[in-house]
Amino acid sequence: MALLASGGSIDVKDRAFNFSPGPAALPTKVLAEARDELLDFRGTGVSVMEMSHRSREFMDMAEAAEADLRTLLNMPREYRVLFLQGGATMQFSAVPLNLLGGKTKADYVHTGHWSAKAIKEARNFCAVHVAASGEASGFNHIPPLSEWRVREDAAYLHICGNETIGGVQFHDYPDLGISLAADLSSDFLSRPLDVRRFGLIYAGAQKNFGPAGLTLVIVREDLLGQAAPTTPTPVNYEVQLGADSMSNTPPTFAWYMAGLVFKWLLRQGGLEAMAACNEAKATRLYEAIDNSNFYHSSVALADRSLMNIPFTLSEPRLDGAFLEGAEARGLLNLKGHRSVGGMRASLYNAVPKEAVVALVEYMAEFERKRA
Amino acid sequence: MALLASGGSIDVKDRAFNFSPGPAALPTKVLAEARDELLDFRGTGVSVMEMSHRSREFMDMAEAAEADLRTLLNMPREYRVLFLQGGATMQFSAVPLNLLGGKTKADYVHTGHWSAKAIKEARNFCAVHVAASGEASGFNHIPPLSEWRVREDAAYLHICGNETIGGVQFHDYPDLGISLAADLSSDFLSRPLDVRRFGLIYAGAQKNFGPAGLTLVIVREDLLGQAAPTTPTPVNYEVQLGADSMSNTPPTFAWYMAGLVFKWLLRQGGLEAMAACNEAKATRLYEAIDNSNFYHSSVALADRSLMNIPFTLSEPRLDGAFLEGAEARGLLNLKGHRSVGGMRASLYNAVPKEAVVALVEYMAEFERKRA
Repeated sequence: MALLASGGSIDVKDRAFNFSPGPAALPTKVLAEARDELLDFRGTGVSVMEMSHRSREFMDMAEAAEADLRTLLNMPREYRVLFLQGGATMQFSAVPLNLLGGKTKADYVHTGHWSAKAIKEARNFCAVHVAASGEASGFNHIPPLSEWRVREDAAYLHICGNETIGGVQFHDYPDLGISLAADLSSDFLSRPLDVRRFGLIYAGAQKNFGPAGLTLVIVREDLLGQAAPTTPTPVNYEVQLGADSMSNTPPTFAWYMAGLVFKWLLRQGGLEAMAACNEAKATRLYEAIDNSNFYHSSVALADRSLMNIPFTLSEPRLDGAFLEGAEARGLLNLKGHRSVGGMRASLYNAVPKEAVVALVEYMAEFERKRA
Repeated sequence: MALLASGGSIDVKDRAFNFSPGPAALPTKVLAEARDELLDFRGTGVSVMEMSHRSREFMDMAEAAEADLRTLLNMPREYRVLFLQGGATMQFSAVPLNLLGGKTKADYVHTGHWSAKAIKEARNFCAVHVAASGEASGFNHIPPLSEWRVREDAAYLHICGNETIGGVQFHDYPDLGISLAADLSSDFLSRPLDVRRFGLIYAGAQKNFGPAGLTLVIVREDLLGQAAPTTPTPVNYEVQLGADSMSNTPPTFAWYMAGLVFKWLLRQGGLEAMAACNEAKATRLYEAIDNSNFYHSSVALADRSLMNIPFTLSEPRLDGAFLEGAEARGLLNLKGHRSVGGMRASLYNAVPKEAVVALVEYMAEFERKRA
């Protein structure tokens, strides 16, 4: 890997620009904080990885992490927070197990790869109705609300807020008088969020706020207490809430890292500031794509993701050369998902503006020289 | 926290002696390795936490970790390894979901806190028969094999190899012509293990081989392919084996840490060497307890755990003073579990001999001055 020739801020110096779709870039300052206390967590003489989750020091850290998260989201009291394991994929089962409450139906909006997985898994537990689908147009847009057909007796309505592979994202959330359950794994904490629009939110940490192995669940209190008896304890929301997410040993290091990221987000100015930064990054890249005849995005303008930007080269035979040249400049992990090909730049919170500037410069140069 | 006054080996210098029951001590050298490459994993320019699990560099590391584990255990080819999330507690559901295979019965041996939890969770999925129980004697021993009553039509027989709270441990494993499923969370890799005695082994990492958030599953191939349709994908053994444990994003950092610990174990001389070291440590502490009229262990001699050594003071009113004095010397996390009180010293792999020497010295001094 070639180190970056130019200097830049302390946040980016000497590190690659990492466009990984996930596990994704973390703030360099957060990594440095973790490194500096990795063998001695705040004077305890042991690593944060070596501490009981029930120790005073760990509990203090864990509580501060939740408090910071609540501040970031301005979260109402009636919403509870869980720090779990298993990934969003475990929630694909946990959501119906916890929320069906004796009902037999749940409705899902199908917007691509991740909603398809959620639908498939939910079918093990209930009769799933696809309320709307973007399939007919190759999942290049979010189906307009006017097309949604939601059943009145469905236990909940499920959406995936951002599809990392197709690159479509909800920019508004529907209010249909039914509990909305949302997989926000890939855009959680990338912008302000009105938690009140949801009955349930879940998100894996490895895109915007931590290492893989931690899954946040935010659930409105009135939805608790109806889990199926076969719900595994580690993902039984009510049991875990009663135990402060420590019914079994939580992923302590990932929790700690998320706590550091929450503090970093507050220092950046909170989610409004992140939204402005993320929008500026995405706009810059989309403009570069749209102003070119060589690069192409097939995603509908209104539904384009600010997090994951897939694009293609007009000559796919040049894909390898593009990636090779990018890597030589320290622009890493730009290869598109194998199911769609081409390129994909993931611009999560910790990807600095400088990374997008460098990418856009490289794209222009590549187009000039090779197209 | 007072740093240790005496020097000792580089592995223990300037760090506390950590007797935590889990998440537990990790080798200082392993933590230092992780620290040194935390911002740049082997020249990639990014942290191991920021890499795609499907990147070449991560896959290479992941494969090496499995190869090292196989070497440590001399594992036969017909056993497969999974690196999962969810903790051993998730396996309490995953075991019946994966292994019942249409049968309706499973047998469990009840030896204390953790087997009770496994039994309770399994009852959600099948008719559980307790084949033997140590309850009558307060779980201070492993029920002798002659007392076990195992049903011929049970899908499997489940044991907990080591009870961290009661401090009892299997020192031999039964061969009863039925698939043995074992929770070895708290003594896995602490000594050689004949994997052939088991159909299934599972173990959380946070005792002997890594941070919390990683669960190893070792399963004999012929037990695959019979998972219930409601098995959540992340703990469906066959699905995860088909995807090299990457059906969903694995806990990459914890996997990496476990890989470092496996290499450390090999450098120590493998599991025979660990067994000798662990036995020496436990013997030293049990001798100190048994040779005293002030300290007491209630666990049957033959079934005493080498990993978790609970003991009481003859005057429980001195518990607080004992713990305070210990902490002042850098002897941390000796408080017994709230359900049994007293003290507990956990002597996992990464707890150095020096820690036990220091503890035994302190115990003698405390007894002399206060008893």
